[in-house]
Amino acid sequence: MKDYDFDINIAVVGIGLIGGSYAMALRALKPRSIIGIDRDGKVLKNALHRGIVDEVYESGGKFLKDVDLVIAALYPGDTVKFVRDNLQNFKNGGIITDTSSVKRDVVRDINSFLPGHIEFVAGHPMTGRESRGIEFASADIFTNANYIITPSNKNTARGLKIIDEMARRIGCGSVVYVSPEKHDDIIAFTSQLPHAAAVSIINSHGENFINSMSSFIGGSFKDITRVAQINSELWSELFMMNSDKLIDEIEIFQRSMDRLKTALKGKDTDMLKDIFENAACRRKSLIKR
Amino acid sequence: MKDYDFDINIAVVGIGLIGGSYAMALRALKPRSIIGIDRDGKVLKNALHRGIVDEVYESGGKFLKDVDLVIAALYPGDTVKFVRDNLQNFKNGGIITDTSSVKRDVVRDINSFLPGHIEFVAGHPMTGRESRGIEFASADIFTNANYIITPSNKNTARGLKIIDEMARRIGCGSVVYVSPEKHDDIIAFTSQLPHAAAVSIINSHGENFINSMSSFIGGSFKDITRVAQINSELWSELFMMNSDKLIDEIEIFQRSMDRLKTALKGKDTDMLKDIFENAACRRKSLIKR
Repeated sequence: MKDYDFDINIAVVGIGLIGGSYAMALRALKPRSIIGIDRDGKVLKNALHRGIVDEVYESGGKFLKDVDLVIAALYPGDTVKFVRDNLQNFKNGGIITDTSSVKRDVVRDINSFLPGHIEFVAGHPMTGRESRGIEFASADIFTNANYIITPSNKNTARGLKIIDEMARRIGCGSVVYVSPEKHDDIIAFTSQLPHAAAVSIINSHGENFINSMSSFIGGSFKDITRVAQINSELWSELFMMNSDKLIDEIEIFQRSMDRLKTALKGKDTDMLKDIFENAACRRKSLIKR
Repeated sequence: MKDYDFDINIAVVGIGLIGGSYAMALRALKPRSIIGIDRDGKVLKNALHRGIVDEVYESGGKFLKDVDLVIAALYPGDTVKFVRDNLQNFKNGGIITDTSSVKRDVVRDINSFLPGHIEFVAGHPMTGRESRGIEFASADIFTNANYIITPSNKNTARGLKIIDEMARRIGCGSVVYVSPEKHDDIIAFTSQLPHAAAVSIINSHGENFINSMSSFIGGSFKDITRVAQINSELWSELFMMNSDKLIDEIEIFQRSMDRLKTALKGKDTDMLKDIFENAACRRKSLIKR
């Protein structure tokens, strides 16, 4: 298949950290236009003024008839709602993608009402920052990031190809395909569990104790709690939509923690060394940097 | 008290990541000489060749009679052994400090045999890297780091002043004083628990599963598991020397994790949001960056 020509109209819905970064990164694809949709007029003005988008709207509408590719950078529930609310507006043959980090519910819900002449390709760029909003958006948040596409039986080769190529051309280092079900399994471990652990570490003591710790913190504490500075609205939605799988991962993790505790309680240095060597070896082979 | 004049002879024992970094950073204090002690002749040759140290020895000895300040950058047990083995060699009025991240045992053991004319000032620079060895040493690992001094009733104002000033002049952002007991309480939470959690996350699944995850990893997993690339010899010693306090911290953390699980199991979104808001607020106020 030859390279897809992005000489098209693209709309980004939700001009926050992720949506703003998409709009910025998509310029490199030389699209005909980038339309920004956000309910916050000030954000739109900022994005337009800075040339991040070419046109702005506070909600969907008939203008979407000219849009070839819609990128919904919204919370999962809002993504489903945006698609549902604009079913009459989307272009024949248009592609809609999303960015949310839970997939089962989003794909099932959208596929349940999406007509055949519009295609939804579910995508998840594994990138983010602990800060929110367009002020922190940057084209380079995608550089070398992993991009996950979760195809359903309603997807076409063309639809998948467009999102795959977009992901690569905005800088992602890898594009992989897994089912929505498998995606949510994996993400419970690779993304949700780290957030759950970070939050639980920083919440494990009373507030006064924590506040007295600032002079006793090194790199390990900073790194491990970075994502504890969490967007509570977004992440409570993400956790609840995947609670079954996340509960499983928390319990598997707790058993792993228990093994370490057993080594400590039994003063079993050999067992502890095994645990550490295992961990060091896995970390090293998993992440080459 | 006027500034201490570091026109003295300093010996660094153990020229690895930490010892090598000390030797590099101490140059800024313009000491008369920096002596490197390491059992590995190749490391000494490298350090001497690069001008990181001025003189080298493979072990302690009579030359220590001319050394005003000895910095033991060794594992805790080796620090105690080095001091014990060189009791006859240290200079009258000389200062010995260490860098280890557990303090109760080190301070108790050394104070039990140290004669009155030599002073041990226990210190803990809260810095490190996931890589070992002099190749990764750098003067700037101390920049803005927290430095903890754990005084005992054997310390003098002069001894504490020298280590305090050294810490500040190699770049540390804060120098704080707590008892060895309190230090080990705190460090169980701010340093050992993050390491225990990182190791337990990466060990929670089988090796094949972990190896298949490389395309599904984002910043949160990378950050939270960074310290899982652990030095198993060093950290098994550190964990075992503080196992009572670390076990407590693991159990407190597990109860914090359980509260999150309770919110998920009960589909209690408000409880989950509270947990997240609490965490975000604490992280933000604790670490301003």
